[in-house]
Amino acid sequence: MKLKTNTTNRRKFIQGSTILTAGLLASPLTGLSQKASGFNTEGLYIIGPKEGYTPEIGTLLSTMTMMRTWLINSVKDLTVEQLDFQIDEQSNSIGAMLLHLAATEKYYQLNTFHEMEWGSWDEEIKKEWDVPMGLGEKGREQIKGNGIEYYLSKLEEVRNETKKEFATRGDDWLNKTEPFFQDQPTNNYCKWFHVCEHESNHNGQIKFIKKRLAV
Amino acid sequence: MKLKTNTTNRRKFIQGSTILTAGLLASPLTGLSQKASGFNTEGLYIIGPKEGYTPEIGTLLSTMTMMRTWLINSVKDLTVEQLDFQIDEQSNSIGAMLLHLAATEKYYQLNTFHEMEWGSWDEEIKKEWDVPMGLGEKGREQIKGNGIEYYLSKLEEVRNETKKEFATRGDDWLNKTEPFFQDQPTNNYCKWFHVCEHESNHNGQIKFIKKRLAV
Repeated sequence: MKLKTNTTNRRKFIQGSTILTAGLLASPLTGLSQKASGFNTEGLYIIGPKEGYTPEIGTLLSTMTMMRTWLINSVKDLTVEQLDFQIDEQSNSIGAMLLHLAATEKYYQLNTFHEMEWGSWDEEIKKEWDVPMGLGEKGREQIKGNGIEYYLSKLEEVRNETKKEFATRGDDWLNKTEPFFQDQPTNNYCKWFHVCEHESNHNGQIKFIKKRLAV
Repeated sequence: MKLKTNTTNRRKFIQGSTILTAGLLASPLTGLSQKASGFNTEGLYIIGPKEGYTPEIGTLLSTMTMMRTWLINSVKDLTVEQLDFQIDEQSNSIGAMLLHLAATEKYYQLNTFHEMEWGSWDEEIKKEWDVPMGLGEKGREQIKGNGIEYYLSKLEEVRNETKKEFATRGDDWLNKTEPFFQDQPTNNYCKWFHVCEHESNHNGQIKFIKKRLAV
């Protein structure tokens, strides 16, 4: 990670957690009898605060990083033909789904970092991202012939931007709320959790298609 | 939610967050110039601390609740025939996937709440849950003929147990770590994040199958 470190904030969180934990010891919480040897922060499978980010943003990012790793593991060895494979007439290829994930993250960046109303993006942005965002017929026509490096570099490029923006924000930003899903109050944490679980959703479909590749 | 409330702990978190935020104001964090009117806690799309749980556990649970709601929305109107539908010979029915999600959560309960080594469950438990956990041929043979209420009540029964156990634990329990995924250090937060994203993974497959139902 090339971002500036933020050790002081991390330390504050860890101290804060300790104080909170101490406060809880008066309650009959069985979980607390277990080892409480401080907080690990390294490792793909350690979900929690991460160097360079405020505690909750680091925790969120750690879920996104784990998900992304699993997604990449699903697709990294696929050929162009496999990435273009259509399981039936209404399906999306694995390649198109990968670009769709990058497009989704791009649009959530604009909505949450730049506070743009959903869909109010510049024409230039729409020209690049509306097709992968929408998938369907146009996606099937236009998104093909690319090697895995193309899709992975698009995903990485967009993710790097997310990490850069995350690093400049405090945890309170996660609770910035607007009517969004089903027109209900939705906070930024929720939007970014969706970006994360959405990768798992499509990874489920990718794994389903991978088992049935005819190329 | 029928669990005892834990308002004091929630207040401590909110106070803690405020202190943390105040500490961060010395840094040039653009996110902090935005509205910081305290923390919302209610609402399906407000990811964050929840009444009755310590802050991080509440936050985790709020992602699980959102995911579960989206899953239920995908399946709630399906008929027995649709729940049993096999898209091809190697596929899992939607019904089997729903029971698989309940089985997964059950096994993560045993592993993380009862600290049992993965797979070391009692015979009685295995008898009920090994088939939905494993899916495949046996799943295709044995999991069928059930209405949606059957699957939803199984999911709810297991989730209620998760919530009961979550309510007795402190946030430090989330960082209890053992070698797990790929034999790498894996904390409880990670295991439960997986339980959550795993629902999204299968929901992606469920939506794929729903678009192709022939019954």
